[in-house]
Amino acid sequence: MVILGIDPGLATVGFGVLDYIKGSFKVIDYGAVLTPAGMPLEERLLEIYRGITELCETYKPEAVSIEELFFNDNRKTAVTVCEARGVILLAAHKCGVPIYEYTPLQVKQAVTGYGRAEKQQVQYMVTNILKLREVPKPDDTADALAMAICHGYSQSSLLFNI
Amino acid sequence: MVILGIDPGLATVGFGVLDYIKGSFKVIDYGAVLTPAGMPLEERLLEIYRGITELCETYKPEAVSIEELFFNDNRKTAVTVCEARGVILLAAHKCGVPIYEYTPLQVKQAVTGYGRAEKQQVQYMVTNILKLREVPKPDDTADALAMAICHGYSQSSLLFNI
Repeated sequence: MVILGIDPGLATVGFGVLDYIKGSFKVIDYGAVLTPAGMPLEERLLEIYRGITELCETYKPEAVSIEELFFNDNRKTAVTVCEARGVILLAAHKCGVPIYEYTPLQVKQAVTGYGRAEKQQVQYMVTNILKLREVPKPDDTADALAMAICHGYSQSSLLFNI
Repeated sequence: MVILGIDPGLATVGFGVLDYIKGSFKVIDYGAVLTPAGMPLEERLLEIYRGITELCETYKPEAVSIEELFFNDNRKTAVTVCEARGVILLAAHKCGVPIYEYTPLQVKQAVTGYGRAEKQQVQYMVTNILKLREVPKPDDTADALAMAICHGYSQSSLLFNI
């Protein structure tokens, strides 16, 4: 099962494409869709829309796994992150890919076994689970891979029924 | 100059299409794109995307006027409103329509002459300026018409330079 994990953002949309077969993952691709700060908002949203559409068309994922957003104190950022997230959901849905949402707590629980794990611990486990040589950069990419892992595990276990 | 005013939302996207000629407005169309609460988020976003695209294709506006969003205390709503707003900006931009953003204070100032006017005062003035028989419903539609009026006035006056 090909899973596209996404960490939404305006400047940086992390993505990770994994194939989940019989309890283990094969890494297909990972990286980030970047949009420059000087570009008008609507143009940045279009870049993100095109980037996600291209990923869906190239890898034909059977699931998009994306973080459920909550507001933090950085309110200016929160608006644009949500705007980008709306565009990401639209792109995936227009490509016919089912969308699954997980909270940060669920993702950390799935990847590290502890819902309140530190970011570094998540990155360490993502690197280990996927047998990568180094921690994926930027952080948004590692987070996107964690999203994909979370969806994979949730398909084959009682993870969220504990 | 045909202006499409939009009041973003997930359940209700208000819209108003006005032609602004030599300092007065001709009403072309107004209403709302509605999405049902039981529908999945991504499907609702697609409905909004299609609705805005259809408005742009039908009326070929020279400007989209939309509210700049700030967060209120209703945080759950704020996330989905911003997601809808992202999709609206994308739809307008894909149709090639320039986007203009105004704060609630600017809109109230433009329509009533007072930046902290009450909602009812804005509705009253929108109805009067456009010579409508009754206050447009729902509120989102009246707000969208106020957005369009605000952009019209901003084109021909020193409104925001006072």
